[in-house]
Amino acid sequence: MTTHQSSDPETIKALEAFLDEEDYGSVLELLRDMHPADQAKFFYSLKPEQREILLEKLEVPEIADIFDELDDKQTLSAAKDLPLPFLADIIDDMDPDEAADLLGDLSKQEVKKTISLMEEPEEVLPLLRYPDETAGGRMTTDFLSLSPGDTVEQAIEFLRSTGLETDIPYYLFVVDQNRKLKGVIGFRELVFAHPDQKIADIMDDQVISVQPMQDQEEAARVMKHYDLQALPVVNQHHQLVGVISHDDILDVLIDESTEDIYRLASVSDTTLEPESRLLVQLKGRLPWLLLNTVTALIGSWVISNFGDLFVKVAVLAFFQSVVAAQGGNAASQNVAMIVRSLALGKVKPRQILFILLRQIVVGISLGILIGVIVGVGVGLWQANPWLGLVLGLALLGNMLVASIVGTLAPLLLDLLGQDPALASSVLVTAITDSIGFLIFLSLAAKFLPLIQQYV
Amino acid sequence: MTTHQSSDPETIKALEAFLDEEDYGSVLELLRDMHPADQAKFFYSLKPEQREILLEKLEVPEIADIFDELDDKQTLSAAKDLPLPFLADIIDDMDPDEAADLLGDLSKQEVKKTISLMEEPEEVLPLLRYPDETAGGRMTTDFLSLSPGDTVEQAIEFLRSTGLETDIPYYLFVVDQNRKLKGVIGFRELVFAHPDQKIADIMDDQVISVQPMQDQEEAARVMKHYDLQALPVVNQHHQLVGVISHDDILDVLIDESTEDIYRLASVSDTTLEPESRLLVQLKGRLPWLLLNTVTALIGSWVISNFGDLFVKVAVLAFFQSVVAAQGGNAASQNVAMIVRSLALGKVKPRQILFILLRQIVVGISLGILIGVIVGVGVGLWQANPWLGLVLGLALLGNMLVASIVGTLAPLLLDLLGQDPALASSVLVTAITDSIGFLIFLSLAAKFLPLIQQYV
Repeated sequence: MTTHQSSDPETIKALEAFLDEEDYGSVLELLRDMHPADQAKFFYSLKPEQREILLEKLEVPEIADIFDELDDKQTLSAAKDLPLPFLADIIDDMDPDEAADLLGDLSKQEVKKTISLMEEPEEVLPLLRYPDETAGGRMTTDFLSLSPGDTVEQAIEFLRSTGLETDIPYYLFVVDQNRKLKGVIGFRELVFAHPDQKIADIMDDQVISVQPMQDQEEAARVMKHYDLQALPVVNQHHQLVGVISHDDILDVLIDESTEDIYRLASVSDTTLEPESRLLVQLKGRLPWLLLNTVTALIGSWVISNFGDLFVKVAVLAFFQSVVAAQGGNAASQNVAMIVRSLALGKVKPRQILFILLRQIVVGISLGILIGVIVGVGVGLWQANPWLGLVLGLALLGNMLVASIVGTLAPLLLDLLGQDPALASSVLVTAITDSIGFLIFLSLAAKFLPLIQQYV
Repeated sequence: MTTHQSSDPETIKALEAFLDEEDYGSVLELLRDMHPADQAKFFYSLKPEQREILLEKLEVPEIADIFDELDDKQTLSAAKDLPLPFLADIIDDMDPDEAADLLGDLSKQEVKKTISLMEEPEEVLPLLRYPDETAGGRMTTDFLSLSPGDTVEQAIEFLRSTGLETDIPYYLFVVDQNRKLKGVIGFRELVFAHPDQKIADIMDDQVISVQPMQDQEEAARVMKHYDLQALPVVNQHHQLVGVISHDDILDVLIDESTEDIYRLASVSDTTLEPESRLLVQLKGRLPWLLLNTVTALIGSWVISNFGDLFVKVAVLAFFQSVVAAQGGNAASQNVAMIVRSLALGKVKPRQILFILLRQIVVGISLGILIGVIVGVGVGLWQANPWLGLVLGLALLGNMLVASIVGTLAPLLLDLLGQDPALASSVLVTAITDSIGFLIFLSLAAKFLPLIQQYV
């Protein structure tokens, strides 16, 4: 598939064979030819005892490269049993933002100890201050900055002396002596400017930035909107404290999408994976199922108020679920559209009434179409036109309710500062279920004599 | 929020006021100070007649910048009524990949005419060959390449002469005289290398690339895995035909997540928005609701086979939906986890059996917990221990079924080359509904005399 991809199945097989033969010289040789991303993938696929051996054989900077590429959770599981002095060396060599994430996952005592053992904790310390899901929690301190008063020649000389390794290779941020952000310049623009020009004269002083406590999702939206490869983070004094890079925004978008998909499907733990351990699964799935137990029993209670009906016309028990299910499906469609629109920042407050009205019209239209189809179909199947009529009307009513609830619930949660995806199927469906039963059985009670004529 | 953001509410208000006063001089002045992304956002928020006036007043390159920033659908709606010679001028000035997307949305005849009117169709033509959702459909031809035999000095001189505008500003691709991809080099590495060195000696010859007909999702995964800011696309002769840039992968990830969320919620049109027109909504939502009508009626048919039961014990009609609903929710949780794992490339074939076994254990555990809670609760509520027992056992059985179906359905679809998200709630829930009714009512029929003792 790719020109040179170091993770091809044959290399992996060879690696596994060498590991089985305990020929670690060959393992290391093959591994060192691989891209760190592939090294990390291979490393994580190993059994814990094999990983342990590799960690003994690899050099500290090599381990740091692998840890930089692993997920936060994977890094923690690989790091948690290492002796702290060894771990401190590795963290010293890691990218500051990845290092901060790893430290953030350790216990307070371990963090204190590890930092005291580190040679250069200065790069990591400022990053530990911000929660994981903020712009500050995503940024890195590994970027290059220039002074506005320098000439292009001085700036290039300075960059030449700093070496090549940095997380943000292309954009250079211009800060004054108080570290206040003044501008930005691309590496190419710098190189092709006249050597005597001042940085202040050629930089772009319209820099878009965010603050460290802003939500990472907001930062991702800004980067996406302006097509930025790097986004500076400034504190309230407008001092540059970090930079978010393009790969961070990918992670944010992926995490946020996973969160939405999981919440919409009533999975509360967004780190849950199909292969997660039993207890983790139960913890991440049981709460919403229990909540649904309550809401489902409310549905049962609604039905129980019409208990006599079933004795008289058992056929009603066959179709009540159809009304509930179609309402639930229509509501899920609405919730998905609103949640996605909100996540992509597309819903404007002044549109809300318009959207609600449109969705009411859509709900009525869907209700009429589905109502007629099911009503006529069931009316013929059961040779009972009044049953068909009641079923069709109930479907229409419940799909109208579904449009309103499915549209308003996520919008309301968003207005209240909550995650709109919490209006997951479970909650909204609970409402459409109960109301579906209520409409259908009330109508059936009203039309009972007519329905009974044909039973 | 941002240091200098040109789309602040006051600017927008001023713009709207000037527009109302038909003071187009001031509108253009304000607009030209804004970031193109904000210009595009403002432009799209206008009424069609206002947009028309702006299109008359703006210069062609300004319109091209705005079109580059709009979504494909938005660009089309703004472009579709323009005279073709004018449109051809605009497309000449657009980014090649955006231009190709726009041309791809026009009719065949319009495309032919527009291309014949363009001054430089060469950049766009090769992009028209590939379907939208492939690597070729996402790539741009607006990148810079070097010859392996040139010296660093010659290369820098060449780059200086090409000017600064390019979609891929940082990475320089090295191709031989047959346009075969030989290596890649970062702009900084180039600038800081010795002027006499040959490009071939300093380039990285381990270039990761994809082929134009590969799925865009695969390209996005490669870019994410290797943290690439630009991914070269090569044909079967290994000639460089285009480059995918970092903002394209963002679009791919966002589109694919929207698609998954919509499909899981049974919305078949992934471009649907809450404010889309009625007919578009019906087209995007009705098909799955109709399918669900069929599956819901299959559930009704299952129940109808137990019609006599309700006449004898109406209380059964209260609780059949609880069994169905809990199975559906558990299955949705499984589907969401598997779909997400597959989308992120995390499920390995050899894990499938392990995942299935784990999910069966999880399903049984959830079933026991929920079964006991609901069984005991309803047994006490209805003062009917046998009803409670039947309900608990049915919940256990249906949640076991849910784990199996919810896990296998998306995996199976993926194996068949279909989108695993098609195993949406509707389909999987249909199965858990019918089987839920079947288990509960069969058990109830078996235990009928015992249940009836307490009615």
